[in-house]
This record gives sequence, structure tokens and C-alpha cells, in this order.
Amino acid sequence: MDTQYSARRQAVAERLAERKLQALVVSSPVNVRYLSGFTGSNALLVVFAGGQPVLFTDPRYGIQAARETGLRPRIVRGGPLAPAGIKAAAGRGRRRIGFENLRIPFETHARLSEALPLGAELVPAGSLIEELRMVKSPREIEQIRRSAEANSKAFAAALRKVKPGMTERDLAAELDHQMRRHGADQAAFETIVAAGARAALPHARPSDHRLKANQLVLIDMGALRDGYASDMTRMLVLGRPGAAPRRMYEAVLEAQLAALDAVRDGVAAAAVDAPARRVLRGYGMDKAFVHSTGHGLGLEIHEAPRLGRNEKTRLKAGMVITVEPGVYVEGLGGVRIEDTVAVTANGCQNLTPTPKDLAVL
Amino acid sequence: MDTQYSARRQAVAERLAERKLQALVVSSPVNVRYLSGFTGSNALLVVFAGGQPVLFTDPRYGIQAARETGLRPRIVRGGPLAPAGIKAAAGRGRRRIGFENLRIPFETHARLSEALPLGAELVPAGSLIEELRMVKSPREIEQIRRSAEANSKAFAAALRKVKPGMTERDLAAELDHQMRRHGADQAAFETIVAAGARAALPHARPSDHRLKANQLVLIDMGALRDGYASDMTRMLVLGRPGAAPRRMYEAVLEAQLAALDAVRDGVAAAAVDAPARRVLRGYGMDKAFVHSTGHGLGLEIHEAPRLGRNEKTRLKAGMVITVEPGVYVEGLGGVRIEDTVAVTANGCQNLTPTPKDLAVL
Repeated sequence: MDTQYSARRQAVAERLAERKLQALVVSSPVNVRYLSGFTGSNALLVVFAGGQPVLFTDPRYGIQAARETGLRPRIVRGGPLAPAGIKAAAGRGRRRIGFENLRIPFETHARLSEALPLGAELVPAGSLIEELRMVKSPREIEQIRRSAEANSKAFAAALRKVKPGMTERDLAAELDHQMRRHGADQAAFETIVAAGARAALPHARPSDHRLKANQLVLIDMGALRDGYASDMTRMLVLGRPGAAPRRMYEAVLEAQLAALDAVRDGVAAAAVDAPARRVLRGYGMDKAFVHSTGHGLGLEIHEAPRLGRNEKTRLKAGMVITVEPGVYVEGLGGVRIEDTVAVTANGCQNLTPTPKDLAVL
Repeated sequence: MDTQYSARRQAVAERLAERKLQALVVSSPVNVRYLSGFTGSNALLVVFAGGQPVLFTDPRYGIQAARETGLRPRIVRGGPLAPAGIKAAAGRGRRRIGFENLRIPFETHARLSEALPLGAELVPAGSLIEELRMVKSPREIEQIRRSAEANSKAFAAALRKVKPGMTERDLAAELDHQMRRHGADQAAFETIVAAGARAALPHARPSDHRLKANQLVLIDMGALRDGYASDMTRMLVLGRPGAAPRRMYEAVLEAQLAALDAVRDGVAAAAVDAPARRVLRGYGMDKAFVHSTGHGLGLEIHEAPRLGRNEKTRLKAGMVITVEPGVYVEGLGGVRIEDTVAVTANGCQNLTPTPKDLAVL
């Protein structure tokens, strides 16, 4: 049996006690997975301030849930899990029951409410679990590193197949294919390949636009491997870029290095964002940097913390974040450079092995 | 401007009037897309029993939303869309406002409630939009046919690369790659490749298990193309299958043909399920058929109606459904055969061009 899950549930139990909650109904698949190891799509996990957790699922998942969690799942046939879940949570006179207000569907909450015993109440638990998830264990960091490794190998393999005339869509398909070949279970998000002026849209979707010589191409990709995500953005060019894109590239690279340099245990998230903006201001490009500098990631591609302008969350050793400044100029294009890094006591460990020079093919 | 969206909103408006609702707040991305054409991830659409619809989104999507919908989107900066949405919905003294109780997150509903003017109420709209979506337009059927075509071409291309010793995971990656090469934007769901005894799990995930000679291999795959899903299951074998799997295959094929034969406008969904079970009973295999015979599909891979044992929903011309009986025997394996078909006045149009013989390689 895997002790990491019981350790996480113990951490939840402590927070429940602090908030005077006697139980927490965990309804979101990702948080059920975090706290039990169960990967199926239909489950409800009840964690208590004191006592053994209870996992509910349906007959499709009985064997799998037992194998993955080491718990004895309770099987609910033909119907929602919520009534059985709330009965367990509010049993023995427990009165204050937490629920995942930020993730639960309206209908699931309605079913919990209906079956709630008299005298008990449902209390919004906010981001109780998400706060725990921010700081990763060494084992989780290793899993994210392996995800980043699959991603970087795929990038290198696909680069060998790039040629002028290839469409953005073709290249995106090749990148995704190589990810799978190099150990990813799937892409963590829809791979972005945006050539020339199309890269001015921060979230461009791959189109039938063809790659041309001397154009910058933005590639934003991430793997999902054993449940853990990675995230990377690199720029490439077929031939020689003009002076303007080259200058954008230099500015963003300098900004990214400045931000990376600011990462360490104890600094506020905003203190990583600020140096990137400062560098870009020096180039007159700060207005073209229209998003935040990064975000946490792990079981999900976007997790807390957000590395934005006014974010006061302090980085802690063990957090895994992206560092990804970018500039976007309509009509001209966009440049973004992004690594996945783990925060350490004195700086950070870069988990993304791909070199950061402009990939000239 | 695309008139199909205004026609759909008109149909919604009529249903709102029937239920004495003055407006409907549409919060789920798939239903916003169905009623406006907008494909972004953050939107709220308010449809009125009488009057012009209002679309809310954030600054990232302003240009895209205008281009895709022909509406003038209202841009909400830095914060949730719900307060602005409910203000528009309940403006001018409107009192009964529908909301998507089956899809809305708890928090979005809470924000609508908070901003609801005195005297107005939020009324669960249930599956009002989903019921409209069940019957597809000729153009939608053509889109699903194109999705099925990409899927079938991918299956044929991947088959040419199958060889003994290949893992399930390798073959799944190849199928997905070929889907993209043949026009799909992505797989509509995680492709299933399950060899030998592993096919006894109806939702097996591809593993590192290697394909061996004389084993049946179950492949369940579907494309997503221009937003529309398709779904197909085929069986293949390297070499010669034994007598037991061959008999399972014959039984399921006969069951599938019997179910297909029952599809037509006006019959109850259960009347398509019943002949499949009847055929399998003749083979002594009805107990091994552990799921329903099919489901609707379109913008989502699983839509209404469900073709189960007690489903009274009547099929209508224009519905698009899967027909997919299967049998699963622990230790031995599983067989499923699945097509995507459009219901017509006198029968159905099979949208899946892949031949249905056991693919012997």
C-alpha cells in the first residue's frame, strides 16, 4: 500500500480540525486521485478529521478502485453517489461537513443537500486541497521531470521532420505523435503551433497555414505522463529571421532568464513576475506582455499559484511552476519562452532539458 | 452570418415561452457553441423568450467571439461573467430565469443567485437544450459523416502498420496519429486497444501488453472534426482466431445487424436494444452483454438518447446514434461492433464506411 495517500489525507484531516469541520466530501476526480490514487471517472471520497476514509464508486470500477487505493471501496449501484456519501460523512452526529464549492457541480451539491441529516450543514471548503497540492513531494517532482523529459524528447524528434510547406496542423500532429512515442500518455493540452503573424494570438490553434522560410514559429506543448503535466514553449525559425523578430526573441529570453533568476523559496509570486516586466520595459515591449509570468502545474496543467503582477502568495520549496514571459504584436507575431521549474531553497531546478536558443533549422 | 444559430435560438425561445420562462442563462461551453457558434472556453449566453440574445466573454476572446457568432459580444474584464449575465437576463423586470442546472458549477450558480434582483427567480431548465440537440440538421449529419470518414480512413491506414509484438499503446498512438493525418482535430475520446483477455473490460485503457497471433483485438475509436464526434468499434485478429472467439464474433455481428435493422423514425429506443439482446440470448450470451446498445452523439461523444433496456424515448429522423452491442467474458476476452448511424424515416443511414468483417491480418 502506498503511504503517500494516507499522508496527504492526514494533512487534510489536520486542516479540517483547524476549521472545525468533521468531514470533507471530495467530489472532483482530480482531488479524489490526489488523496487516494483512484483514477476512475466516478467517485466520491469522504475524509474525516479523525478516522478512516471511505471511497464510493460504481460497479464498473470496483476492482480497479480497490487495486489503486488499497481501500475497500463501497459500490453504489444505479444512481448518484452523493446520498451514500453524505450519509457516511454526516453519520454519528457529525454536523459540519466540508464540500468542494469551487469544483462541485450544482446538481451534486443539490443531492448532498437533500440527503443531509437534520442539524448537519454543508460548509464550503474553498481551496483546502489545492493549497496542499501546491507543494509537491520529491516523488511528484520526479514525475513532472519525467513528463518534461518525454515532452522535450518529442520536441527534438519532431524538429528533425520539420520542413517548409508543412502546415501548423501537421507539425502539431507530429509533436503529439512523438510525445506518445516518448512515453507520454497524451498531450496535457492542445498543442499550439503558430507561425509568423499568427503567433500574435497567445492561444492560437494550429491551422492549415503553412510554415515559411524566415518566419518565427511558436510551439507550446506539454506532456501528461502517469497523471502529471509539463509545459514548455520554444521558438523555431526556418532560415534567418528578420531584425524585428530577432530583437523580440532577445528581449523575451532576457526577461525569462531574469524571472528564473528571481525564483526561490520565500519570495512573493509577484516578485518573479516583476523582473520579466522590467526587462521588457527596457526594450519598450512591456505593453506587449499581456499575460502573467507563469502558473503552478502538477496533476492539472493550471494549478495555484499564479505568477501575476499582484500575487502575494509566497513561493515555497517544492512548488512546481512555469516561467513564461511573452510579447505579442499584432501583424508581426509573438515570442514566448517557457520552462517548467521546481522551486528550491536557493533558486530553482529547471525540469525542462530543451536548449533555449532560437532553433534555427 | 450563419442562420442556423438564430434558428436554434428561436427553438429555445419557443420552449422558454411554453415554460413561462422569460430568459435562459446558458453557461456550458457546448451549449453556448450550439446556440451561437462560439468555441471559446469562457462565455455566458443569455437567450430570451423574445428579443436579441446577449453573449458575454472576456477580453481574450473579443475578436474571436464576434467573428464566430456575428453577435456583438459584451466583454467582462477581470472577474466572473455571471453578475453581468444575470443582470441582462433579469433586466426589465423579467422574473423567471432559466439556468442549466444539469451542467452549471455550484459556484457559477451561487454568483447568479447573489446578483439576482429581488422578485426574480432562477428556475432549473433541465435538458431543454439537450432535447433540441438530439435531432441533427442535414448539415450536422454531414459533419458527423465527415468525422466518421476521417476515423475510418485512420483505421485503414493504421491497420497497414499493425504487426505482432506491437503494444496496445503503440497501436493506439498510431490510430490517433492517423486520425489527425486524415482530417480529425483530435480523438473524440481516449482510443481503446484491448488484446485478448484484456478486451473483457469494456473500457480497457491501452497498456504495454503486446499483440499476439490468433488473438482478437478490440479497437474503439472516434474522431472529433469541426466540433463533431464519431464513434466506431472494430475487431481484428493477427492470424486465425480459435472457435470460441469466432463464435462470439458471429453472435455480436448478428446482434448488431438485428439492432441496426430495428432503427427507424418512431420506434422507442428500447426497441433497438431488444433485438440485440434477443439474438445474444439465442447464443447463450445475453448475460455477457453488460451495457446498453448505444447512445446519441454530436458535439459531445455521449448525448441523448440512450438506447437501453427501458428507454421510452422515441427515435426521430435526424437523430444520430451508435449501435454497439458487445459481449465480455472474463479470462476469454470481449467483442463489440459499433457503427455511427443517422435515423431516417424508414431505417437508418450508416455513416461508418469501414467494412464489418473480422479484420484478419
